[in-house]
Amino acid sequence: MNDHYKDDSLTLHTDLYQINMAKSYWEDGIHNRKAVFDLYFRKLPFANGYAIFAGLEKVIHFINDFRFSETDIAYLREDLHYDEAFLEYLQNMRFTGTIRSMKEGEVVFSNEPIIQVEAPLAEAQIIETALLNIVNYQTLIATKASRIKQVVGDEVALEFGSRRAQEMDAALWGTRAAFIGGFDGTSNVRAGKLFDMPVAGTHAHAMVQAYRDDYTAFMKYAASHRDCVFLVDTYDTLRSGVPAAIRVAKELGDKINFIGIRLDSGDMAFLSKEARKQLDAAGFTDAKIFASSDLDEYTIVHLKAQGAKIDSWGVGTKLITAYDQPALGAVYKLVSIEDENGEMQDTIKISSNAEKVTTPGRKKVYRIVNRQNHKSEGDYITLWDENPEDEPRLKMFHPVHTYISKFVTDFDAINLHEVIFENGEQVYRLPALREIQAYAKESLSYLWDEYKRSLNPEEYPVDLSQKCWDNKMRNIEDVKEKVAKIKRESKL
Amino acid sequence: MNDHYKDDSLTLHTDLYQINMAKSYWEDGIHNRKAVFDLYFRKLPFANGYAIFAGLEKVIHFINDFRFSETDIAYLREDLHYDEAFLEYLQNMRFTGTIRSMKEGEVVFSNEPIIQVEAPLAEAQIIETALLNIVNYQTLIATKASRIKQVVGDEVALEFGSRRAQEMDAALWGTRAAFIGGFDGTSNVRAGKLFDMPVAGTHAHAMVQAYRDDYTAFMKYAASHRDCVFLVDTYDTLRSGVPAAIRVAKELGDKINFIGIRLDSGDMAFLSKEARKQLDAAGFTDAKIFASSDLDEYTIVHLKAQGAKIDSWGVGTKLITAYDQPALGAVYKLVSIEDENGEMQDTIKISSNAEKVTTPGRKKVYRIVNRQNHKSEGDYITLWDENPEDEPRLKMFHPVHTYISKFVTDFDAINLHEVIFENGEQVYRLPALREIQAYAKESLSYLWDEYKRSLNPEEYPVDLSQKCWDNKMRNIEDVKEKVAKIKRESKL
Repeated sequence: MNDHYKDDSLTLHTDLYQINMAKSYWEDGIHNRKAVFDLYFRKLPFANGYAIFAGLEKVIHFINDFRFSETDIAYLREDLHYDEAFLEYLQNMRFTGTIRSMKEGEVVFSNEPIIQVEAPLAEAQIIETALLNIVNYQTLIATKASRIKQVVGDEVALEFGSRRAQEMDAALWGTRAAFIGGFDGTSNVRAGKLFDMPVAGTHAHAMVQAYRDDYTAFMKYAASHRDCVFLVDTYDTLRSGVPAAIRVAKELGDKINFIGIRLDSGDMAFLSKEARKQLDAAGFTDAKIFASSDLDEYTIVHLKAQGAKIDSWGVGTKLITAYDQPALGAVYKLVSIEDENGEMQDTIKISSNAEKVTTPGRKKVYRIVNRQNHKSEGDYITLWDENPEDEPRLKMFHPVHTYISKFVTDFDAINLHEVIFENGEQVYRLPALREIQAYAKESLSYLWDEYKRSLNPEEYPVDLSQKCWDNKMRNIEDVKEKVAKIKRESKL
Repeated sequence: MNDHYKDDSLTLHTDLYQINMAKSYWEDGIHNRKAVFDLYFRKLPFANGYAIFAGLEKVIHFINDFRFSETDIAYLREDLHYDEAFLEYLQNMRFTGTIRSMKEGEVVFSNEPIIQVEAPLAEAQIIETALLNIVNYQTLIATKASRIKQVVGDEVALEFGSRRAQEMDAALWGTRAAFIGGFDGTSNVRAGKLFDMPVAGTHAHAMVQAYRDDYTAFMKYAASHRDCVFLVDTYDTLRSGVPAAIRVAKELGDKINFIGIRLDSGDMAFLSKEARKQLDAAGFTDAKIFASSDLDEYTIVHLKAQGAKIDSWGVGTKLITAYDQPALGAVYKLVSIEDENGEMQDTIKISSNAEKVTTPGRKKVYRIVNRQNHKSEGDYITLWDENPEDEPRLKMFHPVHTYISKFVTDFDAINLHEVIFENGEQVYRLPALREIQAYAKESLSYLWDEYKRSLNPEEYPVDLSQKCWDNKMRNIEDVKEKVAKIKRESKL
């Protein structure tokens, strides 16, 4: 790392092409045209039935801090050779647009704009990379955590993955996302400090090794901590670890709070059942068994099926890296842009793959909630000026297989977007992390269980209004004509 | 995030149990006993034949900055309720130990200490989480990049994954690791600035959408940039994108440097071959074809087998997240500790799984290089006071299947550890990133190709010296006796 670049800023945390496009826009004088970008993903991760949105708080920090530092500009000048006039423009650049977003903790689905950026074209472009980087990861982990928590149920779920996370930001923001998804605490002390999260942890194998036997190590731990969970698998779980834990608990009695034991290796089903028997036989029927050993929603469901006696689940690698699908593919697509006359023109990106065709236009996303049972009928995407509540009988049809449709009556249509920034000013109050966790829980309660199961969930409807669908078709036709015309003109 | 915690430090980036153990050690007065920890992984990632070590630079920054901030201490006091005397100890804590490490870019293998920390017990413990967090991720990505670069060969490999990385540190340090592994550049501008890496990038689909057709967008790009690579797949690659690129290149002639085109979706084999034909037919036989679309070593080898005409490979998600194995499982194990008499006592962690049994003792790692052919015969781990060059005829035997052995003569034994910190002082000069990349390349040149192929490589020997092996066996026996004794004593 270069020592002379002391004022590192995150504003340069962008792809070079964003700066190059900004340069073209600026030279062409269209950098301040208003543009609307949708941030969304096309496919739910883990074949899950829903995702939990996370990342907004960091996005807000990023936007508030958005400005090129002196060394950023120096680098762009000296190493990348941008000209002075353009650099001066960048140096004065602040984010002056409007951002609407779903709230952190919201249950979200494919192909609906989670975040909508409406801003001068060049600004909107430069922030793209950071927004995707943040939202992709944090949403992925909140979703993975929610899947695991669904399986853990009312027992305790703890995030223990810092050492295996993909670098430090992932450990920190990932464990926060896990909390949003329903986890109860973390081992990461910095996360506890920065986010007011409960932190958990007792001791490691090294301590047993340092004292050379379980009993001595547990006695030393007990001498300096009232709450005691002893790690019992350093040498031999059932012959040395658990007996030593019981011996210490008996000898010290009320002098400590013997919470229980932790298993970190071996056959969790067998060891937990045998350890439970030893603890119960010694009279410690309230002692808890903590487990942590490459756990995820699959191993947990199987351990439960095998009757494992585990009260608290410590989940590391598989959660913090989203091991079975380590990336969410959210994209950020231009859907509307101001033309030379100041009119907004919708725009589309075409693909031979139907799911990759974007949905043009500035839109709203409504959750359609049945007033009878308070369950959601699906999400409904409209153009900006529509309100589903104007319709007594709402037609909802599948955006690809359009013949699949239903009519909904007696519903509330809840606009899922909050205004976060208005013309560059933050107008949204950041909730506390516990509020966000509670909101995620509430948000999930609107879903039928069939959408929430971890294996083969039902597909939740995310439909376009008729107007929105017609607008998309019109845009597709326009592009087709344009391509044909260009082909005719290009005389190759 | 709590606003009143302004002086966030990375020192709290640790697991709570490290602090709790430190407290026990401190209360027991053994916190300053000298301890030796080995950092190593047990299994190579991606079933690869080697790994490329990365992460040392960030480890050095972390150690140099290691001190609890005022708000760190305030948090530990107010939220976690540690007592004042212990907090005072933490507040004054600096890292005062010695760290030996392999160099970044070194080719490394399973079960050899990459980093060796020899420090006061409590200090060594608290830094564990951060060291593993850093080294696990960066080594994983350098290794993945090296696998991909082996397949790419002499063509250009670019890292494009920032938007899909697991948060910002991963994007930044991951692309640096990719460069160490052999990549030629990155799209991340901040990485370019901080690490003196080449940055690359032109424009995105949004620019074509903003100008509503390929031709206009390319003309505008060309008006503001001399070097031009045009992204041709926004609407229709072969009917609109490539023809428009050719038209612009012809019309502008020498006014621009038409480098080539970029394909970002669709069938890369077919599209690249057809695009090549169109470019060649128009006389642009030197124009390059850049590809970027969910590439990794598997897709690249297949695209090449299908005769794809691709000159430059942009790799995103699959590299920056190490998609097929997103975590390396490096561990940090206590191998020796000072006793009450000031003598070092080796220590071991036992497991029913033979590969999880640690290797006790302060050790050295030698690379045994054949003087005839300059190829490596394997790595050789010894106790501290051994020197393989003292042996004219070195016996190397497999540390698990001990009957597999060979004798080596006429060799150099290269000690792979450098001293990085000596009693808390950095004594190692950080090389520039390009030096590290060159070192990785040189380091790979000592390996036979059989260890380097991406599919089913040969297993590289990492062997223990006879003394080191005997010491391990003695430690295992000691533990077995101890467990038997404890079982007899614990009267349950």
